[in-house]
Amino acid sequence: LAVINPEQKTTTGTLRWKGKGTTPNLKEVILGRCYNYITIVNPELSSKDCHNIWMRLLSAFMYKHPCSMREEDYYPLMNMARHSIPCNKSLFWSKTNNLVHRYTKANHDFITLEDTLLGYIADDITWCGSSDLGINYNSCPKRNECESNPSSMYWKMASKMFAEAACGTVQVMLNGSIDNGAFRNDSIFGSVEILNLNPDKVSAVQVWLMHDIEGPQSESCTGQSIQMLKSILENRKINVTCKENYRPVQLLQCA
Amino acid sequence: LAVINPEQKTTTGTLRWKGKGTTPNLKEVILGRCYNYITIVNPELSSKDCHNIWMRLLSAFMYKHPCSMREEDYYPLMNMARHSIPCNKSLFWSKTNNLVHRYTKANHDFITLEDTLLGYIADDITWCGSSDLGINYNSCPKRNECESNPSSMYWKMASKMFAEAACGTVQVMLNGSIDNGAFRNDSIFGSVEILNLNPDKVSAVQVWLMHDIEGPQSESCTGQSIQMLKSILENRKINVTCKENYRPVQLLQCA
Repeated sequence: LAVINPEQKTTTGTLRWKGKGTTPNLKEVILGRCYNYITIVNPELSSKDCHNIWMRLLSAFMYKHPCSMREEDYYPLMNMARHSIPCNKSLFWSKTNNLVHRYTKANHDFITLEDTLLGYIADDITWCGSSDLGINYNSCPKRNECESNPSSMYWKMASKMFAEAACGTVQVMLNGSIDNGAFRNDSIFGSVEILNLNPDKVSAVQVWLMHDIEGPQSESCTGQSIQMLKSILENRKINVTCKENYRPVQLLQCA
Repeated sequence: LAVINPEQKTTTGTLRWKGKGTTPNLKEVILGRCYNYITIVNPELSSKDCHNIWMRLLSAFMYKHPCSMREEDYYPLMNMARHSIPCNKSLFWSKTNNLVHRYTKANHDFITLEDTLLGYIADDITWCGSSDLGINYNSCPKRNECESNPSSMYWKMASKMFAEAACGTVQVMLNGSIDNGAFRNDSIFGSVEILNLNPDKVSAVQVWLMHDIEGPQSESCTGQSIQMLKSILENRKINVTCKENYRPVQLLQCA
């Protein structure tokens, strides 16, 4: 009598996925980053409770099937870890991960999601649950295996909160050297962040459209995808300006 | 009957010093940075024992008078945390703390002491002991109050090991816009690091002499203190070359 099981399992009975498993030392890394953040990086947050933040992250995903995460699972964590961001300091990005963080590490003028507590503790980290073992250190689902996996859901929620917290003029660094357009509807920036900017608090979005030093100029500020971004935001009563190759960032590209 | 006590004490009997006290959450911050380093920053070191490293740091200074530290106190820690550094990658610095780390954070071509495990866990952190309370969170001695305080001694030992580990051509970023000379005998670089470079392993030292963008050009590559550095190193059979305003770093100064 054959039992039909669409999911591959390892000998221990844990599900086998295509992505990297949970980061080793997950507790120590998350907890340690939290303490480093509230003590050294941003001492204004010294009253945050890192142990509780870790427990809330853990209980959001452990012993759960890693494709069944719901937004609500992260509410307790998000509410505990959230903090305000000074006006005019928010810097969003899409397809410029490497360049934007080289920039914020060399210049402390702007704050990306990865410079907030929620982004800082989870950057470059993977985690997912297993209904039998609690935590799956062997493999975790990639986004194309299932969208509601623990990491994707976390970044979606953290991005939403980061956008909600923005005020004044905000910046976004986009990549003008890729084919599908610098602004894409299906990116986190296009599908989550711009929709959660609060028009009562955010007056303008300034686009920094960066081209690779050697690379193609696939899109300029007058390009199609930038126009689409403009119309979406102007419908929401938020002004848009666009600068090509913002100089302080371009200098970094040469360094 | 009056007891003569030259040292000021607080009401709890702890000594009172002029410097900042031990960093809050010392254990969590050091331990967390160690785990972050061996897990994410440099996974080649994943077999290092962070708990043991923390215990060895703690036992080096706790319950000790903070002016009585000896080099030997840190031997157990240093031996456990030491690791090799790829040849031609070592970057020393003196009086360019801010610029050199903006550079290494934006470009991963070189390794400063602060990018090694020992430097990474202790950067921007203070600690010192108290013979009655174990750890003094209220104040710690400044270098001018006593030289053999726990932090100064740590950096001296870590710098010595960092220099001993160097091989091939090494770089040093010096400040050509200060008055007392870009190279100073009494700096950590001048008094510890250059004396511990191993001439059997290190063939050359390349000086990057940086000037502030707006600032004075107090010293050039032909200046007096650079000549002194040359003669000290050439006596030790290590070649010296000097470049003014190394371009990749200068671009950062403009950013």
